[in-house]
Amino acid sequence: MPNAAAVDRETSFHQGEQSMTEILSSYVAGSWHTPAATESARPVRDAGTGELLHSVSSAGVDFAAVADHARTTGIAELQKLTFHQRGVILKKLATYLMERTKDYHEISFTTGTTKRDAFVDIEGGIGTLFTYSGVARRQMPNSTVHLDGGVERLSKNGTFVGRHILTSRQGLALQINAFNFPVWGMLEKFGPMFVAGVPVVVKPATDTAHLTRAVVADMIESGLLPAGAIQLVCGDVTPLFDDLAEQDAIAFTGSAHTARTLSALDCVTQRGTRFFAEADSLNFSLLGPDAAPGTEEFDLFVSGVVAEMTVKAGQKCTAIRRTFVPEAHAEAVGEAIIAKLATQGVGDPREKSTRLGPVVSDKQRTDVLDAVDQIIAGGAHLLTGGREESDKLAAEHGGAYVAATVLQADDAWSDAVHDIEAFGPVTSIITYPDTEDAVRLAARGRGSLVGSVVTHDREFATEFVRKIAPWHGRVLVLDRADAAESTGHGSPLPNLVHGGPGRAGGGEEMGGLRGITHFMQRTAIQASPDMLTAIGGEWVNGSERRLGDHPFTKSLKDLRLGDTLDSEWREVTLDDIEHFANFTGDTFYAHMNEEAAAANPFFPGRVAHGYLIVSFAAGLFVQPDPGPVLANYGLEGLNFITPVSPGDKLKVTLTAKRITPRETDEYGEVRWDAQVVNQNEEPVANYDVLTLVAKEY
Amino acid sequence: MPNAAAVDRETSFHQGEQSMTEILSSYVAGSWHTPAATESARPVRDAGTGELLHSVSSAGVDFAAVADHARTTGIAELQKLTFHQRGVILKKLATYLMERTKDYHEISFTTGTTKRDAFVDIEGGIGTLFTYSGVARRQMPNSTVHLDGGVERLSKNGTFVGRHILTSRQGLALQINAFNFPVWGMLEKFGPMFVAGVPVVVKPATDTAHLTRAVVADMIESGLLPAGAIQLVCGDVTPLFDDLAEQDAIAFTGSAHTARTLSALDCVTQRGTRFFAEADSLNFSLLGPDAAPGTEEFDLFVSGVVAEMTVKAGQKCTAIRRTFVPEAHAEAVGEAIIAKLATQGVGDPREKSTRLGPVVSDKQRTDVLDAVDQIIAGGAHLLTGGREESDKLAAEHGGAYVAATVLQADDAWSDAVHDIEAFGPVTSIITYPDTEDAVRLAARGRGSLVGSVVTHDREFATEFVRKIAPWHGRVLVLDRADAAESTGHGSPLPNLVHGGPGRAGGGEEMGGLRGITHFMQRTAIQASPDMLTAIGGEWVNGSERRLGDHPFTKSLKDLRLGDTLDSEWREVTLDDIEHFANFTGDTFYAHMNEEAAAANPFFPGRVAHGYLIVSFAAGLFVQPDPGPVLANYGLEGLNFITPVSPGDKLKVTLTAKRITPRETDEYGEVRWDAQVVNQNEEPVANYDVLTLVAKEY
Repeated sequence: MPNAAAVDRETSFHQGEQSMTEILSSYVAGSWHTPAATESARPVRDAGTGELLHSVSSAGVDFAAVADHARTTGIAELQKLTFHQRGVILKKLATYLMERTKDYHEISFTTGTTKRDAFVDIEGGIGTLFTYSGVARRQMPNSTVHLDGGVERLSKNGTFVGRHILTSRQGLALQINAFNFPVWGMLEKFGPMFVAGVPVVVKPATDTAHLTRAVVADMIESGLLPAGAIQLVCGDVTPLFDDLAEQDAIAFTGSAHTARTLSALDCVTQRGTRFFAEADSLNFSLLGPDAAPGTEEFDLFVSGVVAEMTVKAGQKCTAIRRTFVPEAHAEAVGEAIIAKLATQGVGDPREKSTRLGPVVSDKQRTDVLDAVDQIIAGGAHLLTGGREESDKLAAEHGGAYVAATVLQADDAWSDAVHDIEAFGPVTSIITYPDTEDAVRLAARGRGSLVGSVVTHDREFATEFVRKIAPWHGRVLVLDRADAAESTGHGSPLPNLVHGGPGRAGGGEEMGGLRGITHFMQRTAIQASPDMLTAIGGEWVNGSERRLGDHPFTKSLKDLRLGDTLDSEWREVTLDDIEHFANFTGDTFYAHMNEEAAAANPFFPGRVAHGYLIVSFAAGLFVQPDPGPVLANYGLEGLNFITPVSPGDKLKVTLTAKRITPRETDEYGEVRWDAQVVNQNEEPVANYDVLTLVAKEY
Repeated sequence: MPNAAAVDRETSFHQGEQSMTEILSSYVAGSWHTPAATESARPVRDAGTGELLHSVSSAGVDFAAVADHARTTGIAELQKLTFHQRGVILKKLATYLMERTKDYHEISFTTGTTKRDAFVDIEGGIGTLFTYSGVARRQMPNSTVHLDGGVERLSKNGTFVGRHILTSRQGLALQINAFNFPVWGMLEKFGPMFVAGVPVVVKPATDTAHLTRAVVADMIESGLLPAGAIQLVCGDVTPLFDDLAEQDAIAFTGSAHTARTLSALDCVTQRGTRFFAEADSLNFSLLGPDAAPGTEEFDLFVSGVVAEMTVKAGQKCTAIRRTFVPEAHAEAVGEAIIAKLATQGVGDPREKSTRLGPVVSDKQRTDVLDAVDQIIAGGAHLLTGGREESDKLAAEHGGAYVAATVLQADDAWSDAVHDIEAFGPVTSIITYPDTEDAVRLAARGRGSLVGSVVTHDREFATEFVRKIAPWHGRVLVLDRADAAESTGHGSPLPNLVHGGPGRAGGGEEMGGLRGITHFMQRTAIQASPDMLTAIGGEWVNGSERRLGDHPFTKSLKDLRLGDTLDSEWREVTLDDIEHFANFTGDTFYAHMNEEAAAANPFFPGRVAHGYLIVSFAAGLFVQPDPGPVLANYGLEGLNFITPVSPGDKLKVTLTAKRITPRETDEYGEVRWDAQVVNQNEEPVANYDVLTLVAKEY
């Protein structure tokens, strides 16, 4: 369990440069471990000032203990909890962290991030926990088995049926995070992993590990997480790969190059460790043919490109590296971007007016400027920025500064602008002649996280988006209609998948429930209906129905799956049909005109309204007195099967199908299977009735 | 396009052994290619008689042309078609092949397969095409973009929304098939790939390539498939791997060893080719603690084990390699299995009485017997079968015969029985003391395609199945209730996923719609509602509504997404509520008793019935005269939001949301968005109304 004393004793990294050998601690197998001084420890400096902060090393970490702790304590404690219970913990945890963001923002400055940009990382990251709390409690059952899809009828008489379930994998999930979003990157992965029930090992990027570590330390100190649910290893985790196998997973965010190295690991290719990569890619933004200078879309486009260059100093896996513009507007776009860039404050990330701070480290600065030179060598020229301007900036401010750099491709089809990523405030303008070529140019990224299209032309957008979709994990269409509320090109959202094919890593993260299922196993269960009801936790048609007291008289305390009401019969007369038609105004000819009804291919003659059938059914199954059933809040999957003719008799059978007590309310959802039949026992209508039922009454 | 003349000229492999150099042809880039005689060609013999049939080689195949043909002609022709059109083609194709099964059965005998077992391969394989035709036409839109999940509201005012779409990947799908199901294995992959819109390259296993080739030749000759939709390469396809990249996919079925080799290919780890493996695994069947000798379950268990040993001579990736029995029943199980095996005819697969034929080749026979020896060396002893008996059989019949072999593990925990797969008529009996150990033993397979549990004990089944699910792609629970209709341990079904974690390859196939999505790209689209409507092809709330003629007067020819009816207002009086209650019998207190209703946490006082609201709404939106709208066949996602009090007024807005003309009927489905609001424009109820509408009227 969390050990507050251990946290307190831990080296405090933001008290300044006390010692050259200060090394960030890791949280391993339930306690904090601070490596002894070692030459291999990597020093980390303040991005803006160059001041030495601390070093990072995983020397002495017992990786076997990490894996063992996750797989024994972690799995045992986590998988005791239901999805809803995990969701409730996430919400409390998010609230706890939200109260401590001031500390994180202070640390974040040392990584070169402006306050404005840090919100996306810190508050945005915590926000994903709230989202995943909601997904767990609203889209999953309050149990440990999630149902995936409906029942498959596998046999004629229905004694043999199938269904898919999702259960928690019996392994650990190793996060390998990028430096650019030390909080968001950790939490957007932690949320789905935690709901899925798998213990997490966090490996932050070295340059920003101290910020991740501060948040993880608070998560542990909160006492909200079960033992073993989270561990943290600052520094190299290579030895852990040897221990990973078929139930484990690696979720990586970072460079395409590292993604390729990891995907070839033995644990992945030989032992079945699941691997998800979300890699930097050559994302594009395209100015539509309609969006000439002077249009709202032109301005939106320019603002978007500039924002993606300056936010996090362009160090975003989703940033716009390729800026596609119609040939006619290339010059205007270049000028507008340069003009807009001139209004962006550059310098100390702690200054409120700063829009463009330093990149994370001197090494990163070197890499970015080298990449710019390579793009130039590959067939592009500088419109603004580049090495000289960057050197001036760095000399002026004394940190890892790169000037905002706009390149223009000499030839749209040359490789360099589509292949070489300068992971900083850099973009290349590339012209396109027509839609077909724009599609081909977009695909030259060989798979990207995101593409955006700025256009108000619906036909163009439809054709272009449908054609580029196979190459992209996310596509944003920006125009005057959504601009005011759009979250922009660069922001992944927890309800949408983040990740793209090919160069972007081929993985997916988040996407609501989808992101949770990555850490679960889908299993097709084949069984009798009774067995399937027991295993899946939802009553399956064909399994036992228990008659007895009216099930609406039972509170959640007493109600069980399969509790059933078998109603009386009620005849539907022609009078009823006419009466209902006149009362409701629904005088559709199939109810009112024998001849016209008989001419309809689906009816034998006049038939009862579907709404009459479900209304009569409600009359047959209702229990009128106050009781535990509080409300009927909806109805799902209503199918009308056999038409009802005047003189037919109806009966409804209502069975408790799914019972979902809420963790934080005095009631829960009960879903009832309703089956209406006629006097020949032919099915008339099937549907689910959705109710709220008190836990006790 | 298919070239019938070329097919006719092609070497006919079932005319007997005309020449030692006869080589199976491949279908490459739209025409048949027969390699010249080459020393590297692999000879293939009749499994039962040893007679030389032909050789297999891909010498001279132009692999660049294969890839290019698929990616240009194949994608262009296939992706012109909608999902429904592809579904219709699949159905016609299945019908065409079903008329030609006699030929396939003749060839199948040469692979050592009995007629009975060949049904699973041939008719079973064609059956998957029928299933996928249904999935395409019933679960997908009649367009080229599939919607994945609902609309995500991304902003407060709803001007910025999101949704996931699935589009066809822009690459080819390479099938690498196992020898054991030369027809089913090819078709169960082809069906989903074809519906997904990706061109297929089939690489059959050498030993049974001639059967696959016969079916593919008919598929081509049928003229039903668009050009480039299918190619066939008999022999080595290694050169093709160098050409595969981020939009391509490999779907492999075969040994775990080969799966590991392929998963480490550069195209997979470095270039983002999607890889799906379905590998042989150490599947188990467990006799429940309740299933003592004398119970129905005991007999079902024994029959199941024997069937999995004899069907396809145990050459099934799903066959039972590990037979888990309670310690007390081990001896009885061994005896019963041996007794049952004695009743199974062994010999010529062409004989009707034969249940156990030869394995596919002498090499396979050698491998199986070697594996048996290794299991024995690892700590097991023979109960029946083994090398000596197999040698006798082979001498007697002159083919690749292996005797049904039952081993008993000396120690349940020794590695060999859990690790070494004898891919023939072989199983090992392993005892377990209790549920906990049974779970651990099952997991020792390190991931399997399928586990089965034979028990009538619901509690045991629930606990055991939930615990082993993370290690299995499919779990069968067999008992007296489902036995008569069960398809058994070994049979994957097209509506359920096939594949398992870890050793089983980590992939998934089939599973209905799930199997199609493997060959598509999921993309999150963010846009204004209007843009999202256009791109996704389904009307999205918040986008344009077009008023005009009552939309129920429009046939599919004229109806457009967004066509809307804005109804009149109707007041709901207390009289209406009481009248409806008395008419329907739904006298729930919330409608009838002011005091009791007000005490309910969700109601302000007496409120209208939900069924009254939707009935009045129908009265407001109905167009009573005969017209193109033929029937209202259902309703989905009904949510009651704001309660309706006496005196409130209601209005309904009905908008054409999804339009699905059928390919083979004179009508189609139209889904209408219905929104009921009160006089304050507060939402009262939202739902979808499902109708059938004529194409013309």
